Amino acid sequence: MSQLPRRPRRHSPFIALVLALGLVFPAATRAQAAKADPLPSWNDGPVKQALIDFVSRVTKEGGPDFLPVEQRIAVFDNDGTLWQEKPAVQGAFLADRVQALVEKDPSLRQRQPYKAVLERDVDALMEGGEKALMELFAATHANMTQEQFQAEVRRFLRTARHPKLGVPYTQLAYQPMLELLQYLRDNGFQTWVSSGGGIDFMRVFSEELYGVPPAQVIGSSLETKYEKRGGRDVLWREPRVDHVNDKEGKPVGNDLHIGRPPVFVAGNVRSGGDIAMLEASRQRRGPSFQLLVNHDDAAREFAYQEKDGASLRAAREGGWQVVSMRDDWKTVFVTSAPPP
Amino acid sequence: MSQLPRRPRRHSPFIALVLALGLVFPAATRAQAAKADPLPSWNDGPVKQALIDFVSRVTKEGGPDFLPVEQRIAVFDNDGTLWQEKPAVQGAFLADRVQALVEKDPSLRQRQPYKAVLERDVDALMEGGEKALMELFAATHANMTQEQFQAEVRRFLRTARHPKLGVPYTQLAYQPMLELLQYLRDNGFQTWVSSGGGIDFMRVFSEELYGVPPAQVIGSSLETKYEKRGGRDVLWREPRVDHVNDKEGKPVGNDLHIGRPPVFVAGNVRSGGDIAMLEASRQRRGPSFQLLVNHDDAAREFAYQEKDGASLRAAREGGWQVVSMRDDWKTVFVTSAPPP
Repeated sequence: MSQLPRRPRRHSPFIALVLALGLVFPAATRAQAAKADPLPSWNDGPVKQALIDFVSRVTKEGGPDFLPVEQRIAVFDNDGTLWQEKPAVQGAFLADRVQALVEKDPSLRQRQPYKAVLERDVDALMEGGEKALMELFAATHANMTQEQFQAEVRRFLRTARHPKLGVPYTQLAYQPMLELLQYLRDNGFQTWVSSGGGIDFMRVFSEELYGVPPAQVIGSSLETKYEKRGGRDVLWREPRVDHVNDKEGKPVGNDLHIGRPPVFVAGNVRSGGDIAMLEASRQRRGPSFQLLVNHDDAAREFAYQEKDGASLRAAREGGWQVVSMRDDWKTVFVTSAPPP
Repeated sequence: MSQLPRRPRRHSPFIALVLALGLVFPAATRAQAAKADPLPSWNDGPVKQALIDFVSRVTKEGGPDFLPVEQRIAVFDNDGTLWQEKPAVQGAFLADRVQALVEKDPSLRQRQPYKAVLERDVDALMEGGEKALMELFAATHANMTQEQFQAEVRRFLRTARHPKLGVPYTQLAYQPMLELLQYLRDNGFQTWVSSGGGIDFMRVFSEELYGVPPAQVIGSSLETKYEKRGGRDVLWREPRVDHVNDKEGKPVGNDLHIGRPPVFVAGNVRSGGDIAMLEASRQRRGPSFQLLVNHDDAAREFAYQEKDGASLRAAREGGWQVVSMRDDWKTVFVTSAPPP
């Protein structure tokens, strides 16, 4: 993916030397880091202060809220929390795949549910119900190997552009959240992604974009079979849903993959999809942090609300920190230039 | 779990100082480590040599087989590979739970499948088929919260003793394999467990016993629901199987949790349960290692064979390394004394 900001895989001798010096003077390095602003794209205010206070408290050895490193688990929703969701990127991928199918077989153009996708006709799509949606997923996400699917995702991310903003989707990650991920990792946190999106979709870009390795990505999944196809054993994507990692499915997915309760959870306002995992993190004894991103920035991103306002209500009741994109963020999208 | 060798959670100032010195003189530390035998409980021979050769090759920067750290994924089966499996510890747990149920409700003593378990009557148990087994799992593993279940496992590990060897099961991990896990981690490998056993069962002891955190444990699972019970939201264990992590299910479970192909896979001879994941690791381009433990040590452990010999045949055909417990291991069980 040429447009992703690449982190070097191997270090030059010079970088290796600098790293070695960092090991020799760990205290000095840490003192410098403490002076620099770890969240430069966040405006000073109650949310930024609460983030820094929390991290300081749980990393203070001997303090009442100290957390051993193995308990420092942070979980982030993806769509609308780490990158934009208008449109949902996996939805754009699905439409792109339908386009490719239609080019191969033009008769699909007049058949539902493909016609509805091509015409962006949500009502017609909804009329088809779950059966139509499953047919779409089967045609675009299943009946292929894991490798084939991820190659398709890679190709899509390389070539697709956001319909309004005109840039690759991977340039539409939120800079303040990338800084927050890094800040947490610098303080011994493991950072995880837990999204309603497909686990195998996100794993294609999570490491380069977020610094989150595939093993720390949790998402919805199709059933997979390991079986012989064309003379070799492959992981085959079946056209059947295995796990839906949304709403009450999120604490389930988190437990299956992490096996330990997260202490820091971040989600966003739109569908109420993150309420359950945000609330779940408040059940643990000891410190925890809940962050809810509110999309109130029509000028720099989009302004949209939840129909029933459930996420903001839960935030008020639970004492979660609510991020106003408009007020709390100096910049919205990734600022690092992509490599040529 | 008082009998598990505990690793200190917080370091004393003295230990912190030693660790800091380790950071100041990383080269010196590494040179010493290279001189010391990393696998002292392994007899010199072709298997030990192959292990050391492989690790040297894939960690040699600039060498043809060099693997970046993120690709150094090692996966170990559990029962019969990391600890003894005669009897299978989770089977002993199940029998222990049945005993407790019978004490509460003596009428169960005359009812199948409980009667069969109490009388160790495998034929009667098999007669009941899958329905009987599922009833047993439901009664002993399901219809409770995740917390309740893991508290039961903890209690069992604390109190149960191996029927022949008379010691807690956690003292029956294989010392040579603990050294191998540590040796791989010292060389940048992530170590994972992938077992037919229950994921939530193993997670209770994997970190203390193997140094493998819960997030790096893969196993069979029941469906779990996040729902309100008794006024609070809990993870509830449903009496329905979600994933069976055995045979062809292992590459599937590994992909779901790791999202990246393992390069080092270890399993054992008994049921053929590890063949699929061992073979799968040979498909990747570049270096890989397959290790198969053969239980041929009637004097110090047990000697048993697979009915159809499929694992050893696959090892011959695939060029896997076969561990003879009798010839390759100096000691079998954990040697570190448990804390008082």
